Amino acid sequence: MGVSLGELAVRFGCELRGDPETQVDRVDTLANADSRSLAFVANPRYRQQLASTKAGAVVLDAASAADCATAALVCGNPHATYARIAAVLHPPPPAPAGVHSTAVIAAGARIDPSAHVGALSVIGEGAVVGPRVFVGPQCLVDEGAMLAEDVRLTARVTICRRVQVGARTIVQPGAVIGGDGFGFAPEGGRWIKVPQTGTVRVGPDVEIGANTTIDRGAIEDTVIEEGVKLDNLIMIAHNVRVGAHSALAACVGVSGSTTIGRRCMIGGQVGIGGHLAIGDDVIITGCTMVSHSIPRPGVYSGGIPLEEAHVWRRLVARFKRIDSLATRLKALERHTLGGPDQEEDDD
Amino acid sequence: MGVSLGELAVRFGCELRGDPETQVDRVDTLANADSRSLAFVANPRYRQQLASTKAGAVVLDAASAADCATAALVCGNPHATYARIAAVLHPPPPAPAGVHSTAVIAAGARIDPSAHVGALSVIGEGAVVGPRVFVGPQCLVDEGAMLAEDVRLTARVTICRRVQVGARTIVQPGAVIGGDGFGFAPEGGRWIKVPQTGTVRVGPDVEIGANTTIDRGAIEDTVIEEGVKLDNLIMIAHNVRVGAHSALAACVGVSGSTTIGRRCMIGGQVGIGGHLAIGDDVIITGCTMVSHSIPRPGVYSGGIPLEEAHVWRRLVARFKRIDSLATRLKALERHTLGGPDQEEDDD
Amino acid sequence: MGVSLGELAVRFGCELRGDPETQVDRVDTLANADSRSLAFVANPRYRQQLASTKAGAVVLDAASAADCATAALVCGNPHATYARIAAVLHPPPPAPAGVHSTAVIAAGARIDPSAHVGALSVIGEGAVVGPRVFVGPQCLVDEGAMLAEDVRLTARVTICRRVQVGARTIVQPGAVIGGDGFGFAPEGGRWIKVPQTGTVRVGPDVEIGANTTIDRGAIEDTVIEEGVKLDNLIMIAHNVRVGAHSALAACVGVSGSTTIGRRCMIGGQVGIGGHLAIGDDVIITGCTMVSHSIPRPGVYSGGIPLEEAHVWRRLVARFKRIDSLATRLKALERHTLGGPDQEEDDD
Repeated sequence: MGVSLGELAVRFGCELRGDPETQVDRVDTLANADSRSLAFVANPRYRQQLASTKAGAVVLDAASAADCATAALVCGNPHATYARIAAVLHPPPPAPAGVHSTAVIAAGARIDPSAHVGALSVIGEGAVVGPRVFVGPQCLVDEGAMLAEDVRLTARVTICRRVQVGARTIVQPGAVIGGDGFGFAPEGGRWIKVPQTGTVRVGPDVEIGANTTIDRGAIEDTVIEEGVKLDNLIMIAHNVRVGAHSALAACVGVSGSTTIGRRCMIGGQVGIGGHLAIGDDVIITGCTMVSHSIPRPGVYSGGIPLEEAHVWRRLVARFKRIDSLATRLKALERHTLGGPDQEEDDD
Repeated sequence: MGVSLGELAVRFGCELRGDPETQVDRVDTLANADSRSLAFVANPRYRQQLASTKAGAVVLDAASAADCATAALVCGNPHATYARIAAVLHPPPPAPAGVHSTAVIAAGARIDPSAHVGALSVIGEGAVVGPRVFVGPQCLVDEGAMLAEDVRLTARVTICRRVQVGARTIVQPGAVIGGDGFGFAPEGGRWIKVPQTGTVRVGPDVEIGANTTIDRGAIEDTVIEEGVKLDNLIMIAHNVRVGAHSALAACVGVSGSTTIGRRCMIGGQVGIGGHLAIGDDVIITGCTMVSHSIPRPGVYSGGIPLEEAHVWRRLVARFKRIDSLATRLKALERHTLGGPDQEEDDD
Repeated sequence: MGVSLGELAVRFGCELRGDPETQVDRVDTLANADSRSLAFVANPRYRQQLASTKAGAVVLDAASAADCATAALVCGNPHATYARIAAVLHPPPPAPAGVHSTAVIAAGARIDPSAHVGALSVIGEGAVVGPRVFVGPQCLVDEGAMLAEDVRLTARVTICRRVQVGARTIVQPGAVIGGDGFGFAPEGGRWIKVPQTGTVRVGPDVEIGANTTIDRGAIEDTVIEEGVKLDNLIMIAHNVRVGAHSALAACVGVSGSTTIGRRCMIGGQVGIGGHLAIGDDVIITGCTMVSHSIPRPGVYSGGIPLEEAHVWRRLVARFKRIDSLATRLKALERHTLGGPDQEEDDD
């Protein structure tokens, strides 16, 4: 499906340097692109490849345009503009409106005629599937769940009872939204299950990665606000709230009743304790343990980079004796300098 | 479905302060409850809300009862009593006995007439589905697997070949019980798969979270004892044994052949090495690495709380030079104090 | 299905000490084996059990053979030989060639007549299922995906569009291969989805664990080379390349565009940052954070073993003041030794 550079320039507000009649069919990297491919440069690191690229055109910013050996679509945010053009050149495969003959639809489900329900999916009693929704194969939309317009469940997604999913939200395979929260009351050395009577409300324009799980609330709801992006294998516990436009990388775990602010960025494998409040615009680098609230915006870290094992073992051994190190230093200070302690609160 | 406070008081052994004829329909938070809602206070932090709650009744302990502006169900363990009452007010949706017409049942499967098998589930050859079992939609109960009475597979659960699941155990969506263990023998730079001939035995009254995986044993079985609670996205490797009534939070990984004792509590994202023995009544806080056995009860930790990134980077840089710090301190001690080393085993 | 020791010795190149007519049916541990069972010793730790085992025969090396009270199959690599024999004694259940009547096969899918497609699986348009492939129940092989000969999708596996899976590769339940990568371009405080136009190419003889996710590439492909073994709940992000015969334990996360070399071994819960290069023959122990590239072979670590909580809290408190420790030490050095700093680069 060819699109002319002239059309792309007009549609996405770019300045075109090159022939507006040139057609591109697909996207590719600078290194691999041919004359029918569109490439982009967002990172200056790749700018050097502009001199030799065979791409039909390159999306880039004004600073890079002079280096470009081929046609250029010049814009302020090349990555975002590239993303929009790529969506035009590589649309999801067409999905005919209607319900596959092997899908199992409860009598009381309401499915918009423009929606697609794929093979072997199950739509439960009272569930609502909105206009132009795509329910891929083998999904479950359980009783009373609601999918707003243009939601996309790619395949094998589980939407549990009464869960609400906002418009245009995309869910990758294997995700489970609305499993029971981990709520148990201790009694005599055993655990009594606490019914999880809340649900999950997912806002519009959210993306939820493969095999990520979002638990339903204990009484009130778990909430994922608009524009949130969750990578794969993330755990969102019951009654968590993730603020609008925050992005969480893979393998993050967020414990129960914690709130995360707006526009936060959380690195991979970060673990966040329960009942904490993370404010807006907080950035947490990967592998960090978060055990207290973070009221102020900023960048936070807690991971220690690796070493060769024999070096690391020595560091750990020293660390395990750091108390003795501090005590010995204080004794030496006292001996050498005399008088009271140098650091009164030291132990 | 209204239930009177009088009935609840009798049934759950509470002292009622208020009108026994008052009916409640549902549970809610102290802040949101109305006259038809039941709330509870287990944490003293919430006690201040008792003066203003509009709840029909509140489950609480004797110490909190005086502060309560509305009817009270007084008992020794409000959280557990609340859990039991909530289960009465919010039962799981009714599931008619019988097999859905789209389920695929092998000729040799034995399904109790009182069991429910949902849409598009598969029950394999020789599998046994016990009395009152609930198999939700899109589950797999593979060949020779056994589900004891009242097991509940919520939806899209995978029970692999020959796995045994005890009575009343609940499994959340996406969980996989009985995948092959990660067993490979090295040979000439390649890996030879070791057949995993054991299975998984899950005790009664267990709960298994969404997308959690429990691998089958290499020769002997992987065992989850009675009353164990596993949160989401947990990995239990082959030949692990988790002792009765232990609770593991989300994203925990337990490596092969490790045993965990009874009544342990393991925090989120804890990583436990292989071939270890964790005793009874061990508590491990979140994000801890467990690389050796823990024979004694107690609380154990290994995570370092985060700092602002620029502070953290400085701490890490200092840590990476801790060996030099120790060496310099010793030199200074020798210089100042003279004589032999102050800490003979220091390096 | 009995097999004689004589046949096993010939077929797997072992020296037999014992009666070649003795038959074994199954494998078991040294402790539990009976006269129809085959056991093995690969770890000297278990050698002491050789004197009392009731096994029909034991696979072991020459050094252990003298201790063995029963028949022995002596070979150079007992674990690998055991693995091969166990595969003969415990073959996967037979799967008849053909497509189950409830599977949903697109008109343009090509399924080899020798392949098995299980109940309620979906094979998309243009997908190719090769000779002797086993597609278990409830799997999805989406449009244009290709499964080479003898691939085994155990059950409920998701193979997304255009993903290629090499010969003999085994995928455990719940794995998702080819979900969209986590690619978003920031624009005005929001995230614009970047279409993920690449796919995943999985080599031959790979194993992929339960609920593991491998994302498709942004433009170029994500690549898992031949012989790689991935445990459960692993996250492989877009455009990662994992080199041949590397093995990754459970809960590892590998961020986008990182390459891992050949024959690497990565411990559980290791987190690997994006755009890094890990060379061949790198071993990383569990719970390590990898934030920079590792060009040289070796063993690397980054996890700190736990302590009792009160001890750990004191260590952490000391660590948080390590900067003051270093500063005070330097002041003391200057005071005691005079002259310039002892460590010029210290701050």
